[in-house]
Amino acid sequence: MQFHLNGFRTGDPAISEASTTHPAFSRERPPEAVDVLIVGCGPAGLTLATQLSAFPDIKTMIVDQKPGPLELGQADGIACRTMEMFHAFGFCEKVLKEAYWVNETTFWRPDDARPDSITRHGRVQDVEDGLSEFPHVILNQARVHDFYLETMRGSPSRMAPYYSRRLTDMQIGDGEGSPVTARFERVDQGHEGETETVSARYVVGCDGARSAVRRLLGRELRGDSANQAWGVMDVLAVTDFPDIRRKSLIQSTDEGSIVLIPREGDYLVRVYVELDKLSENERVANRNITVDHLVAAAKRILNPYSFDVKEVAWWSVYEIGQRLCDKFDDVPEDKVAERLPRVFIAGDACHTHSPKAGQGMNVSMQDAFNLGWKLAAVLRGQTPPDLLHSYSAERQAIAGELIDFDREWARMLSAPLKSADHPDGVEPADVQDYFVRHGRYTAGTATRYRQSVISAEPAHQHLAKGLMIGMRLHSAPVIRLADAKPIELGHAATADGRWRIYVFAPSDDPAAAGSSIEALCKFLSGSPDSPVCKYTPEEADIDSVIDVRAVFQQGHKDLALETLPAFLKPEKGRYGLIDYTKMFCPDPAHGDIFDMRGVNRDHGCMVVVRPDQYVAHVLPLEAHADLAAFFDGFMLE
Amino acid sequence: MQFHLNGFRTGDPAISEASTTHPAFSRERPPEAVDVLIVGCGPAGLTLATQLSAFPDIKTMIVDQKPGPLELGQADGIACRTMEMFHAFGFCEKVLKEAYWVNETTFWRPDDARPDSITRHGRVQDVEDGLSEFPHVILNQARVHDFYLETMRGSPSRMAPYYSRRLTDMQIGDGEGSPVTARFERVDQGHEGETETVSARYVVGCDGARSAVRRLLGRELRGDSANQAWGVMDVLAVTDFPDIRRKSLIQSTDEGSIVLIPREGDYLVRVYVELDKLSENERVANRNITVDHLVAAAKRILNPYSFDVKEVAWWSVYEIGQRLCDKFDDVPEDKVAERLPRVFIAGDACHTHSPKAGQGMNVSMQDAFNLGWKLAAVLRGQTPPDLLHSYSAERQAIAGELIDFDREWARMLSAPLKSADHPDGVEPADVQDYFVRHGRYTAGTATRYRQSVISAEPAHQHLAKGLMIGMRLHSAPVIRLADAKPIELGHAATADGRWRIYVFAPSDDPAAAGSSIEALCKFLSGSPDSPVCKYTPEEADIDSVIDVRAVFQQGHKDLALETLPAFLKPEKGRYGLIDYTKMFCPDPAHGDIFDMRGVNRDHGCMVVVRPDQYVAHVLPLEAHADLAAFFDGFMLE
Ligand SMILES: Cc1cc2nc3c(=O)[nH]c(=O)nc-3n(C[C@H](O)[C@H](O)[C@H](O)COP(=O)(O)OP(=O)(O)OC[C@H]3O[C@@H](n4cnc5c(N)ncnc54)[C@H](O)[C@@H]3O)c2cc1C
Ligand SMILES: Cc1cc2nc3c(=O)[nH]c(=O)nc-3n(C[C@H](O)[C@H](O)[C@H](O)COP(=O)(O)OP(=O)(O)OC[C@H]3O[C@@H](n4cnc5c(N)ncnc54)[C@H](O)[C@@H]3O)c2cc1C
Repeated sequence: MQFHLNGFRTGDPAISEASTTHPAFSRERPPEAVDVLIVGCGPAGLTLATQLSAFPDIKTMIVDQKPGPLELGQADGIACRTMEMFHAFGFCEKVLKEAYWVNETTFWRPDDARPDSITRHGRVQDVEDGLSEFPHVILNQARVHDFYLETMRGSPSRMAPYYSRRLTDMQIGDGEGSPVTARFERVDQGHEGETETVSARYVVGCDGARSAVRRLLGRELRGDSANQAWGVMDVLAVTDFPDIRRKSLIQSTDEGSIVLIPREGDYLVRVYVELDKLSENERVANRNITVDHLVAAAKRILNPYSFDVKEVAWWSVYEIGQRLCDKFDDVPEDKVAERLPRVFIAGDACHTHSPKAGQGMNVSMQDAFNLGWKLAAVLRGQTPPDLLHSYSAERQAIAGELIDFDREWARMLSAPLKSADHPDGVEPADVQDYFVRHGRYTAGTATRYRQSVISAEPAHQHLAKGLMIGMRLHSAPVIRLADAKPIELGHAATADGRWRIYVFAPSDDPAAAGSSIEALCKFLSGSPDSPVCKYTPEEADIDSVIDVRAVFQQGHKDLALETLPAFLKPEKGRYGLIDYTKMFCPDPAHGDIFDMRGVNRDHGCMVVVRPDQYVAHVLPLEAHADLAAFFDGFMLE
Repeated sequence: MQFHLNGFRTGDPAISEASTTHPAFSRERPPEAVDVLIVGCGPAGLTLATQLSAFPDIKTMIVDQKPGPLELGQADGIACRTMEMFHAFGFCEKVLKEAYWVNETTFWRPDDARPDSITRHGRVQDVEDGLSEFPHVILNQARVHDFYLETMRGSPSRMAPYYSRRLTDMQIGDGEGSPVTARFERVDQGHEGETETVSARYVVGCDGARSAVRRLLGRELRGDSANQAWGVMDVLAVTDFPDIRRKSLIQSTDEGSIVLIPREGDYLVRVYVELDKLSENERVANRNITVDHLVAAAKRILNPYSFDVKEVAWWSVYEIGQRLCDKFDDVPEDKVAERLPRVFIAGDACHTHSPKAGQGMNVSMQDAFNLGWKLAAVLRGQTPPDLLHSYSAERQAIAGELIDFDREWARMLSAPLKSADHPDGVEPADVQDYFVRHGRYTAGTATRYRQSVISAEPAHQHLAKGLMIGMRLHSAPVIRLADAKPIELGHAATADGRWRIYVFAPSDDPAAAGSSIEALCKFLSGSPDSPVCKYTPEEADIDSVIDVRAVFQQGHKDLALETLPAFLKPEKGRYGLIDYTKMFCPDPAHGDIFDMRGVNRDHGCMVVVRPDQYVAHVLPLEAHADLAAFFDGFMLE
């Protein structure tokens, strides 16, 4: 954490100084005009709002029809990639502390000798080694919301949602400057039926699977209709099932299947029961299903183990299929060249998944993380608004891939087991195999954006084979030169809307006159073509738009920081204090980052990383003009 | 974190349910009678109050003469051992996130060629590898206070200090049941001069170096009087001194010495300037010293480096010597056999240190951690009150050792450098050497309590050579059997007043009939001699007084938890939910705990650990009677 740059302050450094130039909105009287209106306080809306709350100069309003924050239920899976993003938002340590860690997944099937009993046939490590510096964890969605709300409250804009407001209508104005007008109905006691109108430059519908924004845009979710019903319950239970504290996929012969997910706090457990597999009369009663049916089904499936439910914390019948919207904004595909987007949809509003791969909440947050920095860049005048087209282009493609994966996975879990009756059934071993092979999908680390102005052609990928363009920067351990602190390189990146250039130095002495590092720093700090010089506003800190960090090959005791370029020790803030956090060396005790990420030792390279942590470009250190051209492709002076 | 045992609850699990049987005191009207009265909200008082706040059945009141929480200054060094304790209190991750990490210490001396310039002559890793799972960190004392206050507020007793109350008088009643009566003067506006009286079963003076409690007991600090003055300032500065982000000990030829401590947030730095070494006219002005003198002195000492102070966040002249009180309670040495202690002093009230070894805050908190569980055990009827004698006996000895160490360290840092003029002067190399050799002292891990009823004779120490009786349990990595989570064994121990028995299993199959593990579990769970059976109240969870954990030698995939003794999977709480967190296996990726801590693989052993995390006993697994005898030595049925 960095703080005290502009003077010492007492108290909690996570609580920013409230902006004086852009004070928080009145709680009693919502604003009438905003830059961004976010509809919905689910994971997508809260991620977006928290991202924008860092910029008090952007007027952001977030509303929900609910009377207050979520307290119970819904999703709970938090993928490794999401944890990386939570680090950027500053609250990953809270999740790490409170959550259940998914370390292993076990697979159960009918016992050959006693087909009415289940038996464990497989057990695998849940996440492959080295995939991320964070584990896969499980935590109540409500707690994730809490952490976002806390972060927003402590932001310079002191943002908080306006609750009890249901979006009922929306008008998109014609022409460039015209805002969108949204109408809300108050649903809180004493105000029922009152309407409020807000005009916004941009509206983002994060309003879930039954999205009103989507409907008002005339878009729809396409795909399997909601015919796959799962019963889900969070319970406190006493059982002799030995894997009750391990994630387990359980398939019985005739009673259906269960996905069992241990939960935070050492006692709670979530059980998904597939309802389509229940015996016929129960299936008929699908819509009248009670938690007693779920408990009874779980008991039958878990035979020969006992399962004595003591308390049901939450339960639901979760009916959802794999569905996808073909565009995530208001611009029809054939109008992309002429129109700029004004309204976006994110999260469940544009794609829904089965709960079985634990994707819903994660993908929704990643949508918002993709959109957030783009909106901020446009509203702050850093990039032209056509950058916003890239949101639908990037995220719709990813959602499509995920839904394909999820469909196959759901199919496997729902299919009958192979047997004489079901010669086309699924082999339990194939289920396990599919799970292992697709671990990177479920971890969220397989996302790869296609080539675009902000995701370059991989002409120099060989210089950093493990830092793939289009994929999230895969962090690795390093030692910070100035204070010898062992940290993760990726943790330099917080959710602050900045671009980053990681400069990997070649093996020769970086302090020598004429070294490629010296030349690059000279270019970046002094050339009129330098993107750092061109795009950083006067008066702003030199790293406020593009943050340059260097990684050297030498051990941290073998490099003298006083000999390294001044550009890597920038003077910042009102006092010109030196920021010493820009230089890193390998951490041999935890592996050498050059080896771990396949960085070319002879030539080094530059790795350009987007504000959402995705690698945008890999370039030779000498490719000053190419670097400039890349940023010139989408930045405004 | 464990929660939901007695039913699911929404919200932040770190905030306990408020006690209904023992509601919090009124904020307007302080209580008139309490079990424990704590005077002083420094680190000692807050540690003690936080410890006691876990027990709402103990009425605890904490007061301070100040109008509110500390906001600035004072100590900042947090030793590894203190971090281990912060883990037990549940807030170590906040400190880890916010603090500066001391990774290296550098040593500077006059340059032989240019004696008016300093040059680096040494650089060492600050804490030896493997000494603790936590780093040595630096954080504003005020933030440490904040974390305690937050923890107290979230405790079942919702404890909060009463400010603006100065202790002026105290009467200790005669006879067994008679309480102590304390008188306070209100010092807040509108209430000046009002007095309040509180009667308490125990009073603990955590009221700092000028302790009123100590004075009222007629005790005094003995040792060097406060003739060593250091100027200390927390500054934001621009400098070309290359070690500005590393802890540095800097000795100049004629201008004195500096201890430089980088601080949290990447910019702030603390500079201690030795005042006795200032040139003569400044020394005379000692009492009128201003921060300008300190800055000027720092500039001269740091020559040839620049040091441009932009803002002074806090500064002070800190005059203190190594002083010690000969007894830490109200019972004279020769009356220990006949009288029970009623009043204690802790922290700076009974020992003061130079700031140079960064001990003050750490030792003060460890005093309180030692006393806290003992007071709780006595007040809850678990042990007879003579246990309380052990507080002064244990902590006074430790304070004495630390003061000897600190005196020598302060002498070395203050002595002139060896030269023709100073043939008896100190060699800079010796300073570095002393620092390295005494790293365990400054880390707080060298503390070793002498033999007593709660610290057994080391008859079986060879069974666990690295888990020394009298010293804190040195944690090591393990894998939790039930959920394959990699954790630290020591982190099983929270500040909940419970004793722990870590059972290290021999290499044979623990599930086999007649194994020593099975026999021990049978004894512990069923024998009338078992301390678990004898000292656990009926109705209470089986682990509520003595918490038994087992560490096996087998890999976690090679042991089936369903085959292991039921005693290690206890049913707890109102539902009888199973606690699956009692069993561990080695974590080969991070070292095998049996090797790391020298545990005998053929025989295994039991390691008994006190509520303050100190090892009390090491016993063979078969020594059931010895185990019983140990607890019988100080527990009440
Ligand atoms: C009842 C339920 C149970 C679920 N169970 C599971 C599960 O077991 N496992 C799993 O993986 N996932 C589950 N999910 C899905 C998971 O919660 C979602 O994938 C995830 O929350 C998507 O996030 P989101 O922000 O896109 O939308 P949501 O979390 O759905 O948030 C949408 C928000 O918009 C608000 N809103 C909707 N319409 C309007 C309007 N017109 N005006 C104002 N506000 C509006 C809603 O009140 C809601 O707060 C469940 C979802 C629901 C609703
Ligand atoms: C001004 C100052 C500067 C310091 N600077 C450094 C430093 O630079 N480096 C370092 O390592 N250590 C420093 N210390 C020492 C360090 O802060 C202490 O070692 C540590 O705080 C000891 O903790 P404690 O709880 O024993 O006492 P303290 O932190 O001193 O707390 C005692 C508390 O008791 C209260 N109190 C005192 N008398 C009464 C009374 N009669 N009635 C009610 N309340 C009372 C006080 O207001 C105070 O809050 C400094 C201490 C002080 C006071």
